[in-house]
Amino acid sequence: MARALSSYAAYLFDVDGTLVHHHHAIPGAAEALQALKAAGKDVRAVTNNSSLGQHALAERFRRFGLPLEDHEVFSALVATARHVAQEQPGACVHVFGNPGLRSECERFGLRVTDAVDADYVVVGNHRGITYEKLTIAMRALLRGARFVTVNMDRTYVGADGDLVPGCGVFAAALERAVGRPPDVIVGKPSITLLCEAADSVGQPADQCLYVGDNPEADVGGAHAAGMHALLVLTGVASSADESVDDPPEHILPSVADLRSMFGSPSAS
Amino acid sequence: MARALSSYAAYLFDVDGTLVHHHHAIPGAAEALQALKAAGKDVRAVTNNSSLGQHALAERFRRFGLPLEDHEVFSALVATARHVAQEQPGACVHVFGNPGLRSECERFGLRVTDAVDADYVVVGNHRGITYEKLTIAMRALLRGARFVTVNMDRTYVGADGDLVPGCGVFAAALERAVGRPPDVIVGKPSITLLCEAADSVGQPADQCLYVGDNPEADVGGAHAAGMHALLVLTGVASSADESVDDPPEHILPSVADLRSMFGSPSAS
Repeated sequence: MARALSSYAAYLFDVDGTLVHHHHAIPGAAEALQALKAAGKDVRAVTNNSSLGQHALAERFRRFGLPLEDHEVFSALVATARHVAQEQPGACVHVFGNPGLRSECERFGLRVTDAVDADYVVVGNHRGITYEKLTIAMRALLRGARFVTVNMDRTYVGADGDLVPGCGVFAAALERAVGRPPDVIVGKPSITLLCEAADSVGQPADQCLYVGDNPEADVGGAHAAGMHALLVLTGVASSADESVDDPPEHILPSVADLRSMFGSPSAS
Repeated sequence: MARALSSYAAYLFDVDGTLVHHHHAIPGAAEALQALKAAGKDVRAVTNNSSLGQHALAERFRRFGLPLEDHEVFSALVATARHVAQEQPGACVHVFGNPGLRSECERFGLRVTDAVDADYVVVGNHRGITYEKLTIAMRALLRGARFVTVNMDRTYVGADGDLVPGCGVFAAALERAVGRPPDVIVGKPSITLLCEAADSVGQPADQCLYVGDNPEADVGGAHAAGMHALLVLTGVASSADESVDDPPEHILPSVADLRSMFGSPSAS
């Protein structure tokens, strides 16, 4: 069962509490990512974010100093567009969400429509919500469109530091309107996000290590998706004792400690 | 148990399927209301409507030819404002709904605020919904405001004849955002609406007859509120057989048949 921390092909990272904390990179996270990449490992920042497209999100991480290319950022938005495109290539999609969701859908070759006739309604965080847009999305679902939501998150922390509505609020509104729950929930705690991330790397789940700070959401999620887990203690969990129910395969104080296992970037 | 149909002090009418059908008055409904009023009976049109204030709704009914004064229209909006004002006179209320809800709250002496500090958040159908308004209502609830919704209706028929989102959609969005259900649901199938209607007439429930077309919602609701029920067959129920589970005290083909029990208006 014991397996070397350096033996995986791909390293998938949770973001908040793992790579980032309060809009700053975790100290040493940038160097650890650099060391992994220099050692030829695939890395992905995997996030439940339901607002920003891949490029915008990668730009944000780069502003924090994290050495992540666009394709190394895998958000629930990307996973959603990817999932729909795998289910039905070129499907006609009604987007009920921010522009980032629309652009990800277009990037995966889906046909985006503002009309009620659609194969899918995909729901993300929606800063531009209006009664008219809600009505059209509802009618599309009532006409039989498949109901996909980026995640079911209630809230997240907004620009002013206080809570703002999350994607799950918009999904709940439509769920109530049409009287049925989403057919697919992509983001955590659903495992669809992790499965799509592994698939996008081209690796089977058992070659991926998922790195996160939350014993339940991250370790539990990794195991549900067939991955090994590395628990770091920079976020939700502050001691290894908190992971007794479903123990991770690996525990480290911080992602920074991954660096020493792969040598410094300059040494590779 | 048998009681004369003409012996009640007040007659509370469901609207759709009872007084109105497809934006027209039920034939004979106007004359029946006139006869009841001429006989000195209190009448109220009681509706789950979560958009229009009392005056606007009464104007609409008058355009259908129904002889209803403003005070004879008792919507879930009126009941909501009345209910809050009884619970806490002069309470500070954040309105998440149409202008009609705001004006009803003001009419009942409540202080309406657009800010997050409020004793109550009252939720109605909200054609003016925006992300910012949703955020403020959510924050007010998270700060401890009491959560009151006009009703939990999923949909209703819009001006174009197709379904549009109902009040319950907005309540569900906030419910998801704050992780708790409404403290009070005023409209049907809750009995708060009928209890407030009886109270507004100044009659105990057992002196009120509730007239409706739906064996479950109307007859069941009347009985739950302690009222006798008259089932009419112009809407949901088309035969008396449909009311076997919870039989109403009275059944008539239509509200029009009430007229003969009170004589014609000119004879009173």
